Amino acid sequence: MKKTVSQFIFDEIARQGVDSIFGVPGDFNLAFLDEIIAHPTLNWIGNTNELNAAYAADGYARIKGLSALVTTFGVGELSAVNGIAGSYAERVPVIAITGGPTTVVENAGKYVHHSLGEGQFDVYQKMFEPITVAQTYVTPENALTEIPRVIQAAIDDKRPVHIHLPIDTAMVEIEVPEQVEYPENRSSDKTDWVSTVEQKLKQAKQPTLIVGHEINSFQLHNELRDLVDQLKLPVAQLSLGKSAFDETHPNYMGIYDGSIAHEPIKSYVDNSDLVLTLGAKLTDSATAGFSQKFSNDKVVMLNHKNIQFDDQTMSPMSLSDIIQTLKTMNYQFDGEFPQFAQSTHTEVDVDDKPLTQEKYFEVMQNFIQPNDVLLAEQGTSFFGAYELALPKGVTFIGQPLWGSIGYTFPSTLGTQLADRNRRNVLLIGDGSLQLTVQELATMLRHDLHPVLFIINNDGYTVERKIHGEHQPYNDIGSWNYRLLPTLFGNEDIPTYNVTTSRELKAAMDKVNAQPQSMHLIEVHMDKHDAPEKLANIAKAFATQNK
Amino acid sequence: MKKTVSQFIFDEIARQGVDSIFGVPGDFNLAFLDEIIAHPTLNWIGNTNELNAAYAADGYARIKGLSALVTTFGVGELSAVNGIAGSYAERVPVIAITGGPTTVVENAGKYVHHSLGEGQFDVYQKMFEPITVAQTYVTPENALTEIPRVIQAAIDDKRPVHIHLPIDTAMVEIEVPEQVEYPENRSSDKTDWVSTVEQKLKQAKQPTLIVGHEINSFQLHNELRDLVDQLKLPVAQLSLGKSAFDETHPNYMGIYDGSIAHEPIKSYVDNSDLVLTLGAKLTDSATAGFSQKFSNDKVVMLNHKNIQFDDQTMSPMSLSDIIQTLKTMNYQFDGEFPQFAQSTHTEVDVDDKPLTQEKYFEVMQNFIQPNDVLLAEQGTSFFGAYELALPKGVTFIGQPLWGSIGYTFPSTLGTQLADRNRRNVLLIGDGSLQLTVQELATMLRHDLHPVLFIINNDGYTVERKIHGEHQPYNDIGSWNYRLLPTLFGNEDIPTYNVTTSRELKAAMDKVNAQPQSMHLIEVHMDKHDAPEKLANIAKAFATQNK
Repeated sequence: MKKTVSQFIFDEIARQGVDSIFGVPGDFNLAFLDEIIAHPTLNWIGNTNELNAAYAADGYARIKGLSALVTTFGVGELSAVNGIAGSYAERVPVIAITGGPTTVVENAGKYVHHSLGEGQFDVYQKMFEPITVAQTYVTPENALTEIPRVIQAAIDDKRPVHIHLPIDTAMVEIEVPEQVEYPENRSSDKTDWVSTVEQKLKQAKQPTLIVGHEINSFQLHNELRDLVDQLKLPVAQLSLGKSAFDETHPNYMGIYDGSIAHEPIKSYVDNSDLVLTLGAKLTDSATAGFSQKFSNDKVVMLNHKNIQFDDQTMSPMSLSDIIQTLKTMNYQFDGEFPQFAQSTHTEVDVDDKPLTQEKYFEVMQNFIQPNDVLLAEQGTSFFGAYELALPKGVTFIGQPLWGSIGYTFPSTLGTQLADRNRRNVLLIGDGSLQLTVQELATMLRHDLHPVLFIINNDGYTVERKIHGEHQPYNDIGSWNYRLLPTLFGNEDIPTYNVTTSRELKAAMDKVNAQPQSMHLIEVHMDKHDAPEKLANIAKAFATQNK
Repeated sequence: MKKTVSQFIFDEIARQGVDSIFGVPGDFNLAFLDEIIAHPTLNWIGNTNELNAAYAADGYARIKGLSALVTTFGVGELSAVNGIAGSYAERVPVIAITGGPTTVVENAGKYVHHSLGEGQFDVYQKMFEPITVAQTYVTPENALTEIPRVIQAAIDDKRPVHIHLPIDTAMVEIEVPEQVEYPENRSSDKTDWVSTVEQKLKQAKQPTLIVGHEINSFQLHNELRDLVDQLKLPVAQLSLGKSAFDETHPNYMGIYDGSIAHEPIKSYVDNSDLVLTLGAKLTDSATAGFSQKFSNDKVVMLNHKNIQFDDQTMSPMSLSDIIQTLKTMNYQFDGEFPQFAQSTHTEVDVDDKPLTQEKYFEVMQNFIQPNDVLLAEQGTSFFGAYELALPKGVTFIGQPLWGSIGYTFPSTLGTQLADRNRRNVLLIGDGSLQLTVQELATMLRHDLHPVLFIINNDGYTVERKIHGEHQPYNDIGSWNYRLLPTLFGNEDIPTYNVTTSRELKAAMDKVNAQPQSMHLIEVHMDKHDAPEKLANIAKAFATQNK
């Protein structure tokens, strides 16, 4: 059947289950935004700026498995670059579509707005190359093959792709066959490495399975659980990948974060004679500055399309196939290991003392419910939250590798749009919120109901702990955070002012009593107070920066 | 004397007259931010996010001649990319400094936060290459030559430069000589082209001098006036470059914007037999979609380091030297031309009818005072404001080539910090404001007093005029704009609600009565109402996009 090129693109994106399109209009995309408005299953979200849109698309894809973002040439796509790079680093599949000038304008090298004014039109496309796994410049002739190619690449590698769509090309009608052909997922079928892993396991006395963020990216939670049920290996998670593994599972040991891990798991993992890392990356923030005590020659690294051990790169196999291949092993662990002891519910005495970070997370532990989506901003929020014991089915979202402050606020727009039925809980601090605050307006426009905890502690506490505890560059402006919903268009949103644990508990009770509403809880804490993990990791970062 | 590398860099920047440093802290720059805090003449501004910081740095440099921005690796510098690209396009010299991981971390290819997690560290530096005129990776060995080189490049070409500064390098002490050597400004001394220009002028019956943005970038206003006083040529300005030429000068004809120019100037310029463009670029937005009627073979293009006519590129001479060379001509125009007629002050009858865009700018004409800095956002504001007759000494700032909406709001932070004594007047609409609104907090923290006119007309009117007049993607959330100062920390800022010209005039009277305060004026207009120029240019853009 006949479709315009842009109709074809949006139909293919919708076919993958995407129903929200993020972005900001601009004159090089307006005409094909009409296709989104007219589309039977797609909704145009309309963000307040493009970086926020990219963050929202990232959050949406972490829940839904894929997302799409539309920006305009130059000014739009370049504003989104940081968000797309973060999706690349943390493996989140976002389709970034840029509406460009017409091919006529481009071929004539005209000095048009949003260009650098020197007749070059491929500059921005090149900037996207290192931060996307596939790129295409769409023409009416290549659309039928190129669009499936880049969509499949995003899905296969869980990384962003970039589509440059000239506005005139978008409007051209092409003949689309009933069955659009997608390329095969390329994954190595070379499985001989697994016998070596099996041998290593059989020889190991104290093996560890460390899982990480790729499990979340590829949504292989069930496959991982089945694997662990079969192999009976003790499992540690990285903070970069929390919620990869069910924390209530009997084989779970806890979060391993190098020298700052709790004693039983630290002792077990550091003294392991075999460490299988599965979809996990031992980054500085995940290991308190590379402080793991096991040596590299004990590590079997099993990442998507990247298997390495014994100083060799073994096979470019997909993560899903790696897990299937591991299941072919004839092995079961029967040794002892330190089981994760923390309960997802604890008794907490609330009081009227100024709230501390420690108490905040004790009370928060009881607030988190099964199947919540819990977003924690890369600051005191993340470093406190990754210590929480997650009830079954909770999705935990942070950004510890990319670590772009402000990310989680627009990301919550995306996660909540991806599934309106799950409760979304955001933990963020004032310093981070200020970067991306206006996206609250988009949440209100779309009538979303996340629970927003905003720590007001006068600045960048995470940075105070690294350097410049009392330096003015770590201070920020003092805002009236509880006015935000009124400013952004809805004065009926319940807001709370919390200074003690008793007030925190009372606010949470009210939140629970009114689930069909957004809630904004401003939580006051001392600017020098930080979760213990953060204080320790900050020291590691300060040392690393010398 | 001994200085750390970062001390040296900031001393050299301060020596150029820069006194405010924009940016956002991050752990890869914290240690050297100490040098800014400790510096006798530099002030750390501390923006709410990096794109806003880049816009603010752009605004500051447009007034002060140079600016500097500090971000952190990856997340920070990539958020600033759109702002820096805009500075490149419109020729604004911004020194963009990125604090990077230590050279030890980099050489080991470690998986650190803010990297893509794959051991590569030069990815972002490469992304800055096409949008900066010089780049450097600083080492203790090259700092003494590289820093002067890139600073001089920014000054010479009025374009941004990028400095990658590893955090360990920043802290290394180096021996700095009393006299730091700067490279010579490279400009061609080939002047033989000028005799041809002189011949052409002598043969021409109806010559025009079109001036543009490079005059503003290179701050050659006096030199241009002297040139015009000597040659007596009639002068037209582009909207991309308004305030390059004194609009009260007897040789001024007005703004030339192609087919939509006012009849007398349009007729004169379109029928010119010689068009000298000086520091000007005939872009689509400056010419209503390339609608100029004079043919290209009538054009002598005199741009910075780019002189072209008769299908030849003549000489890479600096704009300043071009003007000096033109002064060597033995020529004076004595023909007739249509002098600019509009007065900087007109009688306006105010009334109680709903305010229109037309009336808004009539009343605005009387509000603008000599020596104001007038910023106009790329929407109805810019297209209305470029028609205003500017009193003497007014600096006009817009962004018609790059055209990134939201730019002027943080830019006002920069322009006002660059000179606290000049009155800054910002004209912006709601759609644009929403992208960068939080920078108001930084204006309040630094006690700045700009006059902020915010048009509330429910969305992107500039885009409605191009495509999708009634489409929902051109709608935005409805905010309570007059709450902004209270939200961002100062409830004492006077705010105004304006719906008629009488209310507008009354608000302006109050603003004038209280110059030592920020003022925020919310101006309601119909979402389909637009300045005539915008309506016409939008039609040209719509056609161009087909």
